[in-house]
Amino acid sequence: MRNQQFAIRPTTAPEAVTELKRIHFLDNNNVILTNPNELLLDLFDRSWPEYPDQPAIEHHLKALMATPDLDGWTYLHSQTEVSIAAFYNLALQRLGFAVDLDFKLADPLAAMQALNLPVYHVTTTNLSASDLTQAWYLLLTTHTHDGQTFLDLLTTHGYFEPLMADPTTPKPLIFNGKAQAVFDTTKLIRDVVYVESSLDTDEDGQRDLLKAEILRPAETASGMTVPVLYTASPYNQGTNDEAGEAMTHNVNVPLEAKQPQTPDLADLTPAALPTAPDPRPVKATTTEATETFARESSYTLNDYFLARGFAVLYAAGIGTKDSDGVRTSGDPAETASTTAIIEWLTGDRVAFTDRTATTAITAYWSSKLVAMTGRSYLGTMATAAATTGVKGLKTIIGEAAISSWYDYYRDGGLVIAPGGFPGEDADVLAEETFSRQLQAGDYHRVQEKWQADLAAITHGQDRTTGNYNAFWAARNYLVNADKIKADLLLVHGLNDWNVKPRNVNNLWNAVRDLPITKKLVLHQGQHIYINAFRSIDFTDMVNLWLTHELLGIDNGAETLIPDVTIQDNAEPETWRAYPDWDAPTNQRLTYQLRHDELVSAKTAGPAEATSFNDQLPVAQFNHYTQAIDDWQRDLLGDKHNDMFRHRLLFKSAVLTDPLIIDGRVQVKLRVAVNQPVGMLSFQLVDYGTAKRLNVSPTNLRQPLDEGFHWREDQLREFQLADQPSPWKMITKGHRNLQNRHNSYQVDELLPNEFYDLTVTLQPTHYRLLAGHQLGLAIYATDFGMTVRGNQDLQYSIQLGNSSITVPWVVDPA
Amino acid sequence: MRNQQFAIRPTTAPEAVTELKRIHFLDNNNVILTNPNELLLDLFDRSWPEYPDQPAIEHHLKALMATPDLDGWTYLHSQTEVSIAAFYNLALQRLGFAVDLDFKLADPLAAMQALNLPVYHVTTTNLSASDLTQAWYLLLTTHTHDGQTFLDLLTTHGYFEPLMADPTTPKPLIFNGKAQAVFDTTKLIRDVVYVESSLDTDEDGQRDLLKAEILRPAETASGMTVPVLYTASPYNQGTNDEAGEAMTHNVNVPLEAKQPQTPDLADLTPAALPTAPDPRPVKATTTEATETFARESSYTLNDYFLARGFAVLYAAGIGTKDSDGVRTSGDPAETASTTAIIEWLTGDRVAFTDRTATTAITAYWSSKLVAMTGRSYLGTMATAAATTGVKGLKTIIGEAAISSWYDYYRDGGLVIAPGGFPGEDADVLAEETFSRQLQAGDYHRVQEKWQADLAAITHGQDRTTGNYNAFWAARNYLVNADKIKADLLLVHGLNDWNVKPRNVNNLWNAVRDLPITKKLVLHQGQHIYINAFRSIDFTDMVNLWLTHELLGIDNGAETLIPDVTIQDNAEPETWRAYPDWDAPTNQRLTYQLRHDELVSAKTAGPAEATSFNDQLPVAQFNHYTQAIDDWQRDLLGDKHNDMFRHRLLFKSAVLTDPLIIDGRVQVKLRVAVNQPVGMLSFQLVDYGTAKRLNVSPTNLRQPLDEGFHWREDQLREFQLADQPSPWKMITKGHRNLQNRHNSYQVDELLPNEFYDLTVTLQPTHYRLLAGHQLGLAIYATDFGMTVRGNQDLQYSIQLGNSSITVPWVVDPA
Repeated sequence: MRNQQFAIRPTTAPEAVTELKRIHFLDNNNVILTNPNELLLDLFDRSWPEYPDQPAIEHHLKALMATPDLDGWTYLHSQTEVSIAAFYNLALQRLGFAVDLDFKLADPLAAMQALNLPVYHVTTTNLSASDLTQAWYLLLTTHTHDGQTFLDLLTTHGYFEPLMADPTTPKPLIFNGKAQAVFDTTKLIRDVVYVESSLDTDEDGQRDLLKAEILRPAETASGMTVPVLYTASPYNQGTNDEAGEAMTHNVNVPLEAKQPQTPDLADLTPAALPTAPDPRPVKATTTEATETFARESSYTLNDYFLARGFAVLYAAGIGTKDSDGVRTSGDPAETASTTAIIEWLTGDRVAFTDRTATTAITAYWSSKLVAMTGRSYLGTMATAAATTGVKGLKTIIGEAAISSWYDYYRDGGLVIAPGGFPGEDADVLAEETFSRQLQAGDYHRVQEKWQADLAAITHGQDRTTGNYNAFWAARNYLVNADKIKADLLLVHGLNDWNVKPRNVNNLWNAVRDLPITKKLVLHQGQHIYINAFRSIDFTDMVNLWLTHELLGIDNGAETLIPDVTIQDNAEPETWRAYPDWDAPTNQRLTYQLRHDELVSAKTAGPAEATSFNDQLPVAQFNHYTQAIDDWQRDLLGDKHNDMFRHRLLFKSAVLTDPLIIDGRVQVKLRVAVNQPVGMLSFQLVDYGTAKRLNVSPTNLRQPLDEGFHWREDQLREFQLADQPSPWKMITKGHRNLQNRHNSYQVDELLPNEFYDLTVTLQPTHYRLLAGHQLGLAIYATDFGMTVRGNQDLQYSIQLGNSSITVPWVVDPA
Repeated sequence: MRNQQFAIRPTTAPEAVTELKRIHFLDNNNVILTNPNELLLDLFDRSWPEYPDQPAIEHHLKALMATPDLDGWTYLHSQTEVSIAAFYNLALQRLGFAVDLDFKLADPLAAMQALNLPVYHVTTTNLSASDLTQAWYLLLTTHTHDGQTFLDLLTTHGYFEPLMADPTTPKPLIFNGKAQAVFDTTKLIRDVVYVESSLDTDEDGQRDLLKAEILRPAETASGMTVPVLYTASPYNQGTNDEAGEAMTHNVNVPLEAKQPQTPDLADLTPAALPTAPDPRPVKATTTEATETFARESSYTLNDYFLARGFAVLYAAGIGTKDSDGVRTSGDPAETASTTAIIEWLTGDRVAFTDRTATTAITAYWSSKLVAMTGRSYLGTMATAAATTGVKGLKTIIGEAAISSWYDYYRDGGLVIAPGGFPGEDADVLAEETFSRQLQAGDYHRVQEKWQADLAAITHGQDRTTGNYNAFWAARNYLVNADKIKADLLLVHGLNDWNVKPRNVNNLWNAVRDLPITKKLVLHQGQHIYINAFRSIDFTDMVNLWLTHELLGIDNGAETLIPDVTIQDNAEPETWRAYPDWDAPTNQRLTYQLRHDELVSAKTAGPAEATSFNDQLPVAQFNHYTQAIDDWQRDLLGDKHNDMFRHRLLFKSAVLTDPLIIDGRVQVKLRVAVNQPVGMLSFQLVDYGTAKRLNVSPTNLRQPLDEGFHWREDQLREFQLADQPSPWKMITKGHRNLQNRHNSYQVDELLPNEFYDLTVTLQPTHYRLLAGHQLGLAIYATDFGMTVRGNQDLQYSIQLGNSSITVPWVVDPA
């Protein structure tokens, strides 16, 4: 086990005392204690909210060992001194570490170091009462065996329960720069309101009403204003899974030749949003909602903040259940419906108590500072909102978010499915999320308009060419990246083949020089949340971030949180701080392609040529369409397996030193194909037998309470696989051979004519270990992502004019 | 989707009205309504607790369709009649079924029938106001799309919130024979007490104190007494996973020859429990606990009942954290520590407020009626307690419980691991659950005694012979089955190879003629809970059962709940009622073994002989030890694979009619082995390509609230696999050839001498479809369960003297 905490705020001794008083670990009764043993006994006493009486304290202190021979109770009653070793022996046990298994009583500090837990350093053997205060403060900020701070653990045991109802408790209550769980979640107020947007996307003659579900602390009813975590989730009100599935496109179709064209990028600029009907007249105004809700579809990170004095708002947007409008899969109208909610929260827009829309309701409890949270489509809406520069949106925590929908459904003039979802497209997603359809009465009225809109999406997305066009340009948030005013905390999986890493990379590169604070966390997961991982204090980092951004506390978040945090792919439980990702200043390494080999550009020999044919025997083809894992295994496996002559494999020499790939690998090729149509796919590969991290994290144990008797999350961690694997794909890329310049210009493609082609693979960060080989697979049909026509396409490559360029940084390990 | 509800109580019309008044769906305001439309509008109004105001009701009723053309609001305002079709159209939508996807507005009754939802039948087209009342009553008892009653769904939306705080609400509140969630779970009282047992298992000179964690309704503080669901879970206070794992026995060891012996069964009778020190003096008595707890390790079924007015008690027993004593893996001392808790709940034993053990605390809030719940070891403790006949234990809901520990760790004179855990044994389990070890201070004091006890368990369990002995006799609850006074609700997975089905079968057969009520539910799962399955109303059945058993309500539970409920293995979502399982009256069918075949005894030809050798090439052997699934696949797969000549396969002719196997299949063999040591294993197999149920259930969707803003469970269901499979193992069995008479007598085994052997396989219930073949595999080493010595053992079988006998019942399908 290895712990990594980025969100512990260094605190001066006087500040620590002030903060310990604030959370009632120190008061006039114990601040006067000068004997360390008495002080520590007193602190233990306060740290067991379940045991108000002495006999239980005695029992539980006797259950801990302070030295190899003495239990905690006996030790603290046998002398006035407290040794550092005894303190950390007791501390480690309170943090949930097991004697002998996790640490030795003879040397707890060795374990503290190995586990990477912070230690309060003194030069003496024993701790003074003042030292003890400081060490206790640090201990409260330290992560337990189960990945939460000791203070958060005490919170789940009811430590803050007396403070919740105490009117003298300062709220929000800040400790070590982070908001604490002193809000009673059994008393949360749950409101439904209907925000009136400026659009009429369902063209029913009235502005769209947008349902919002709000949870806020009871304290807001009596004057407290709070910031808002806003999650825009189109899935939130339900989905039409079967209807969406039925619309899924057939991908077993041939790749079609395209007519050459050179469109003007300016022609792709989306039209302005249409003018809407007048707003509804407001007949009365209230602060009391008339509708509530039982159980929102929630995000556990939001739940954590509900206990800490933040309001949470969920809205599903246009075209969802109980709202008006239609789904558009990410166009400017959807963005406008997303920011409309924020405008209400900042007092700049009207919301109504119900759908008769006569009585307006104000967000009087809102401090007008908003953060957006969420993953995937949810994070995408946060990104979209940020690119409008909307007032009040102070920050977004965008996880696995799309920055341009072309980079979600297309690539290089090809239809490229999100990994795992062949045949998915913008129209399928629109249908899936059009949850107005879940209400037959509502659907009955909007059905005709919706079917027409859906047909327009199918037409606009243009699966025939796979080209970038006006439809996709309208869904490219990057063109407005310069409008971003919100600070960014971006999170993405380096193995996310659903929302591919290019999405976060393009955004990161677009904002690098903007005058905002931006942070990036790259993990080894696929398309997942990371807020309950044991090895990193992500939730604490977000707390530090939001306490700074939304509560205005000067807690050092901008500097404490690394600009870039990257989880290592080779060592479990290892996260490192970097100054940047894919920096323009990265060094570059070029390999020439040679027969089966990647060779240093300096030693490249004479040119050769090689070829492969994409067409497979029918039975093999059919099997791969059903068993994509088998295809992937054969693609990268032994050279002479069933994929022999259906792909090319190149491997570097065995590395003598680790190579840290950082950014975008480029492939340059001179290629010909035997027909006027063709595509190429690429996978960059780590070859070398090793135990690697599992694809998915492992659930670790008991539920993790987000507060006190509140909702729970599941602690997780990436673990090494039980068995070694021979290779791992690092990254991949695709290109239509008719899109050699870009994704909207269509180039001529003459059969058997050689063309130069440069393809930028999906960005990555990967530590390739010494003893391993860098590999490159060149192939055509990607069974998981491209169309699968099984066409007789013979691709030839002039190796003398082919190379890859690898950006790299110095090994931090 | 197919729904099966066994727990709907048939209710007379006047009773239905009374009950609807009780839960406030009828009152003086609406009972006078004679126009059906007005009554239904009123009922809808009351059914949306989130929407207290009319505009929201209007919106949500408009969102439902009553007929193919009219929404609910328009329909109910356009006429006074309510047609049956309109009622069920609206009802299906309220239950969460989707128009067009799940049912057609033109014919909702067809869907009600297909989904197997109950319908209120009238002969007219329209419902009178009185009909409507009855239909609404039935609807409230009907399962939604997501597997809970409509009333439970409304509960999760806050329907009962106003009743919770209302002092006039009758509590418990019964509707349709089941207790309803009118208890405020945010106000639960959480007590810790220490029950003093009559034993001193850690021999420290004082009786063992046993920690119990109690959750009880706030109402108990002001005079209400409630029944108790008691879960005895040795895992509850934590486990020593690593220490247990380190103790796991090596199973790659040879099977050893045993000295013949014929012990007297009487010698196996366990010694009486030792006399304990005197009880501690009680210096004071209180009703107030001084210790509490934050979050117990809970069982979701118990959580459901906490909202419904039952108290829940968790105790981990002797040798667990915060208790005294040592672990024994199921011996009479552990049983006594289990029943001690019940004795406190019934007023017959002392508990203390803390471990200084001076102030006694009474369970003044207990109605002295107790049910035990839990699965696996937890259910085992319930079974153990039931076999004492302890007063106050009214019923147990025993899931996947052990009835004799020999049947968990041993079989037929062999060490047989629980499936998935080779090398696990009673000593490993004792170490794993000795959670006193988690507290270094406590462990420090008890370590020496514990290590001695652990060594005694290792000795007693006797892995060398695998024989039944005094150690196992002390852990055989079946010998006391005749003492059972509690009613039994037993649940077991027919695919549970951890706690094998013999455990529940032996108990079922032992109590068949006892004067208690006993019910059995057999599901298609492995070692799992079934309280959140969509296709069966198991939770409702338990509610009906406990409302009868513990609240004394005459609700027909004894007759409504089938004596035996069995989930079908071939059809998903199908549960059937049976009068018995493995009944003595079952018919029997015998197949003779012939070359590769199972043939009808009548047509059996002349005798043959055949043989196989258990020894594998070393690489193959090593692979199977790592990849047990591969071994299983080869064992039952193509005859001429790597297992050829290492096992025998016999298949029946293709069945022309289904065969419903019910009970214990017997194999009779004449067998010889080339050494003075040997064992045989058997698998009964369903051969026939078909899509079968997945091994594990699939998680279905959103969390399922156990009350209102209370804890949540995950809805699940067994689904058919995506791909067909060629076979499925039905059941299996094992026998040491030196235990031909029973598991404690050791017989002589001369090399190459033929002996007759009868082996009873694990009991089952299996519908073998027409077109399939019954198969039998005979082999020796079971890579998942036996020792794996890879010995040169050649087994010969005289087929002329070999047969299997299959008990069967008539096909209910």
